[in-house]
Amino acid sequence: MPTSSIPCDVLLAAGTILTQNETREVLHQAALAIIDGRIAAMGPVADLAERFVPREVLDLSRTMVLPGLINTHTHAAMTLFRGLCDDAPLAVWLTEHIWPAESRMDAEAVRLGTQLACAEMLASGTTCFFDAYLFAGAVADAADAAGLRAVIGQGVMEIENPVFKNPKAALQAAEALADQLDGHDRLRVGIFAHAVYTCSPQTLSRCVGFVRDRGLLLATHAVETARENDDCLNAHGQRVIPYLRDLGFLGPGTLLAHGVALDADDIAILAATGTGVAHCPKSNMKLASGIAPVSALRAAGVRVGLGTDGAASNNALNLVSERNVAALLQKVATGNPTALDAQAVLDMATRDGADALGWPQLGRLTVGGPADLCALDLDRPNLTPSLNPVSNAVYAANGGEVVLTMVAGRVLYRDGAFPEFDYPALLADFRQAAARLTHRTA
Amino acid sequence: MPTSSIPCDVLLAAGTILTQNETREVLHQAALAIIDGRIAAMGPVADLAERFVPREVLDLSRTMVLPGLINTHTHAAMTLFRGLCDDAPLAVWLTEHIWPAESRMDAEAVRLGTQLACAEMLASGTTCFFDAYLFAGAVADAADAAGLRAVIGQGVMEIENPVFKNPKAALQAAEALADQLDGHDRLRVGIFAHAVYTCSPQTLSRCVGFVRDRGLLLATHAVETARENDDCLNAHGQRVIPYLRDLGFLGPGTLLAHGVALDADDIAILAATGTGVAHCPKSNMKLASGIAPVSALRAAGVRVGLGTDGAASNNALNLVSERNVAALLQKVATGNPTALDAQAVLDMATRDGADALGWPQLGRLTVGGPADLCALDLDRPNLTPSLNPVSNAVYAANGGEVVLTMVAGRVLYRDGAFPEFDYPALLADFRQAAARLTHRTA
Repeated sequence: MPTSSIPCDVLLAAGTILTQNETREVLHQAALAIIDGRIAAMGPVADLAERFVPREVLDLSRTMVLPGLINTHTHAAMTLFRGLCDDAPLAVWLTEHIWPAESRMDAEAVRLGTQLACAEMLASGTTCFFDAYLFAGAVADAADAAGLRAVIGQGVMEIENPVFKNPKAALQAAEALADQLDGHDRLRVGIFAHAVYTCSPQTLSRCVGFVRDRGLLLATHAVETARENDDCLNAHGQRVIPYLRDLGFLGPGTLLAHGVALDADDIAILAATGTGVAHCPKSNMKLASGIAPVSALRAAGVRVGLGTDGAASNNALNLVSERNVAALLQKVATGNPTALDAQAVLDMATRDGADALGWPQLGRLTVGGPADLCALDLDRPNLTPSLNPVSNAVYAANGGEVVLTMVAGRVLYRDGAFPEFDYPALLADFRQAAARLTHRTA
Repeated sequence: MPTSSIPCDVLLAAGTILTQNETREVLHQAALAIIDGRIAAMGPVADLAERFVPREVLDLSRTMVLPGLINTHTHAAMTLFRGLCDDAPLAVWLTEHIWPAESRMDAEAVRLGTQLACAEMLASGTTCFFDAYLFAGAVADAADAAGLRAVIGQGVMEIENPVFKNPKAALQAAEALADQLDGHDRLRVGIFAHAVYTCSPQTLSRCVGFVRDRGLLLATHAVETARENDDCLNAHGQRVIPYLRDLGFLGPGTLLAHGVALDADDIAILAATGTGVAHCPKSNMKLASGIAPVSALRAAGVRVGLGTDGAASNNALNLVSERNVAALLQKVATGNPTALDAQAVLDMATRDGADALGWPQLGRLTVGGPADLCALDLDRPNLTPSLNPVSNAVYAANGGEVVLTMVAGRVLYRDGAFPEFDYPALLADFRQAAARLTHRTA
């Protein structure tokens, strides 16, 4: 052992690394040295093997390593409603199926549903998610048990629900959770004001004040459909985006889910305020909500991340297929095959999504940054040949090629198994919880 | 052993079977008995276990078994061009990248590229494909080696190419191959007249005469873009569909790939003539060609199958993700979330596709029919819970859950491996062939 050798936790050797750094460097036959959950060094395998003495060696030489994917909009616990109702008009879906089942939700079901969501996300390369739901404490427990990073959005709305009687109580719950998670390496709290049609202007303003004092992420559903603009015009005399701007809701710490029915003025406002957008193409398509103007948003300089939305309207939490569909949809919607190219959509699923969550250390592999990553098996038929790794990751992969997912240096998924929790034992619990909520065989 | 016991080759026990039969029966805890590549019986596990003495038992009790998927339009050998050029206008893609590489194609490269395609299709549950390419003999060799079913479309066009000097020679080659494959259980020959813009009316008519005498499938690319109609109007005074009708090209034995730029009159012609359509949503989206009116076609009674197109424009040959995108795209295109529901798109990927290929024994699991099937792992997070198996298959699956694919009773794919051919050894050959054709690292 040369005297210069440095101990490290993991030495990971990859066939290809898509760093997603500032210059989008792609490395071949390269390694990462990981110490205390961070990337201590990155470079040629031989160099790092000489410099470091690893506690564990991960041979991923037949894989392509990417930053862990960032899911900027989901309702994780709704995995328990997967397949409950499809192919129905929004009103039928919501009032006849989702709401009745949701009224039976409790903290234990949210914990289980979120853990199932975490398993699904890990199995398809996602390492961080923004969650928009109720029972935020249960979401935090599940994300912690699964080992993912998360910004846990405490839901806020006027409607009384199983968790809180009014928005003030919701914000008090958020404050308590923020105190509890203070200093947590992987979990953060955010505020998820449900929508302009379920929150009064006073509630929206109160949310703004709350996050401003505490530096938390603020999110809401915005213009998922054109009807939201019509309703907002009727109720408040403005389209949704100017209305939110005038309430002080927009800014670099704000993330809008969907952003479908945006006109040029709306896009200019989002750009000027530094507001981010979580694009959820599969959910928008499935509910026939419309097509978000992603190319126009990006051209205006708006940070756009990718989100899966919940499993009740997608029905998967798989960002690999989501980014594929995002690229294809913009091309056909704009009539331009050069729209939203492979690198752009890979950026959205990684670094842009991280930026939109206010967590710019994530979504790229850089020395000093967190060791959050996924590895795709390069020997799979659908990733062969490897003429263009970025193209293969975006256009040829489906998520099933993910053989390893790591968060903060810990392997949380490998070859179909979850080393850090007992997935096979949990399966029965997931199914029981789904059956109990839906009154169906699960 | 009770005296009534019948010997069978395989007894397969499934958690769920989506039979895709006439009534779309879904069976739970059911089994298939397979004899000589055919389904001898289907029913409760206990009943079949009592009646049959199997040579081999396949425990797929934790999976959902579906008919093998039918890919009605691909250019299999083009897997070797996967990722060669993306995000480019059609003309640049074709003239600067695909054609130069294609000019270096030979029989050996087609054999390898097709075998890679077969591996990819098996790994995502496809058991039968229609191939549209040159070197049809090499395609047949590869499909035979991989064990799939295929209708091998012999390419016909005016342009001189590495295989034949003129259309007459192409048809002679097709005749020779048809003689060679006569009586083959899994392989059939078809004629693939490339397009109205690459075949003269005389050549199209000659193809019609050729298939009519021999009962072969006839296919062509038709109205992939609106421009094809403009060009056809200029050249022949008619839109593509009436032009093809007047040439006698349409009918129950004809399959049109793409069918994007169709108006109501075109759709009525397709319905009246019994012509089938191979819908290729991902390729149409990626090349920004447009959106095929699938709901309208189905409403008019046109048989619509699903196709992946080639890996140069998709870039995967995965019908599980293709059917997902097909459903989502129709919903957003029509503004109707009930359009192309899960059952409809599952039909397209199975029985409707089989019918469109003129092979109606395929695409459903029925007693007496071929044992062509795939099995999806029900324990995967993204298929949990299983409130609605058809919904999960269409909206939640991505293809990575396929754990077994069988054609004619033979297991051709299981848990990442291909028992009938040496995939790991072939990988180097696939990469070398791609590198040789593209002059790039593969």
